[in-house]
Amino acid sequence: MITSTGNARVKNVIQLQTRARARKDSRQFVAEGFRMVSEAPADRIVSIYASETFARCNSGYMSTIQVPYEMVSDNVFAQMSDTRTPQGILAVIKMAEYGIGDIIAHDNGLYVIVENLQDPGNLGTIIRMSEAAGVDGIIMSPNTVDIYNPKTIRSTMGSLYRVPFVYADDFAGTLEQMKSKGVELYAAHLEGSVEYTEPDYTKASAFVIGNEGNGLTDAVTNICSNRIRIPMAGKVESLNAAIAASVLTFEAARQRRNGKG
Amino acid sequence: MITSTGNARVKNVIQLQTRARARKDSRQFVAEGFRMVSEAPADRIVSIYASETFARCNSGYMSTIQVPYEMVSDNVFAQMSDTRTPQGILAVIKMAEYGIGDIIAHDNGLYVIVENLQDPGNLGTIIRMSEAAGVDGIIMSPNTVDIYNPKTIRSTMGSLYRVPFVYADDFAGTLEQMKSKGVELYAAHLEGSVEYTEPDYTKASAFVIGNEGNGLTDAVTNICSNRIRIPMAGKVESLNAAIAASVLTFEAARQRRNGKG
Repeated sequence: MITSTGNARVKNVIQLQTRARARKDSRQFVAEGFRMVSEAPADRIVSIYASETFARCNSGYMSTIQVPYEMVSDNVFAQMSDTRTPQGILAVIKMAEYGIGDIIAHDNGLYVIVENLQDPGNLGTIIRMSEAAGVDGIIMSPNTVDIYNPKTIRSTMGSLYRVPFVYADDFAGTLEQMKSKGVELYAAHLEGSVEYTEPDYTKASAFVIGNEGNGLTDAVTNICSNRIRIPMAGKVESLNAAIAASVLTFEAARQRRNGKG
Repeated sequence: MITSTGNARVKNVIQLQTRARARKDSRQFVAEGFRMVSEAPADRIVSIYASETFARCNSGYMSTIQVPYEMVSDNVFAQMSDTRTPQGILAVIKMAEYGIGDIIAHDNGLYVIVENLQDPGNLGTIIRMSEAAGVDGIIMSPNTVDIYNPKTIRSTMGSLYRVPFVYADDFAGTLEQMKSKGVELYAAHLEGSVEYTEPDYTKASAFVIGNEGNGLTDAVTNICSNRIRIPMAGKVESLNAAIAASVLTFEAARQRRNGKG
């Protein structure tokens, strides 16, 4: 059992939890909690750490774990954890490596594209609801918040493992590439001329969502063939990015189940 | 200018920021930031506090303020603020006093009912998107998180002032009362037999949303005449409460604009 935070492996976990750079360099991240560990694809798990108390109270579960795990004292686990009340289990996991080609290979695919989203919880919520709405992949601008931020991972509730995503270094080029493959790009825009319920989303479609405070840049808006607007009552100036993405993708899902109209 | 955190008025603001009890007893709360202060209904503002720096940099705005304001040193303001990077302005505001009678007085009203919601950000997001979707009022079970929690207030983005709401002490009785007034109650339920796009929401309708972790209690579900389900692809077990509420209310808004079907 590891009882010191000076242990090199413990230090490594703490680095992965707190530093995006460490995650990027190692191509690994930390998934914390019973659910995130148990849903992790077995072939991507590098190592598992359990607190002494967790291991004692969940011996049945621990015996089902396929990879060798390391027990750590509760105090050390508290240091490794990103949460105030740690469940007592975490795993170091290899990042998924999707290419844009894998993601847009679908016929009539449904996509969510985000530009410069900054709130980790918003991004995680978008990934979770995207899986539920049947989205085939998420494309992010390179300046979007790190998807492997512990808060984002937590709010995906496991969808992180199942929804393909990519940071597109050449964001504008990727959008043009999608257009050339026949994907209609719909910019969610406060000044959109078309109500979001009008277009036919049963064909290949992508919703393009902007930054929480500033919306989409003009450069990205101009690449999109369509600007759509969610009608808003009252004096609301804009919707939260995750809410806007949900309203749009569930309208697409509705059309895909029931037909347009 | 107030320069000591020992000042009685400063202490009062800190109490209102940190203690639900203090808010309840005084029927007052704190709204922080330029936007929340400038959108506050003038007749409900009790007092305004500005940091020295804010007042100096925004003298034009300060001269438009109708109520006498108090200047405090930047250090004292930092103590009064709920945020890490305070904007430098806050107001003490009288709570709105809505009755259930005011809220359900609409013809064909649209309502959101929440049972035991616990996340302040979720509640705030629900209030904001409810205004945008044209919701006439929000009814909350008494064990729902405090709507005047600073985090909730922040995430409403001003909708707190405009969407009527009530904590229904007799929650079950209030739901029965709504039914007797002709409001159809739709329980958002994972085991709902009806897809949420099927019912006609152009008549008086209320969506009933449960707790983040546990959903609706059986007692409340049983009061509702309808259980509706949001179809979910993939392996998602549930949607975030605010996302579910958004998908439902924007479907109702869509029907109310474009007709059912």
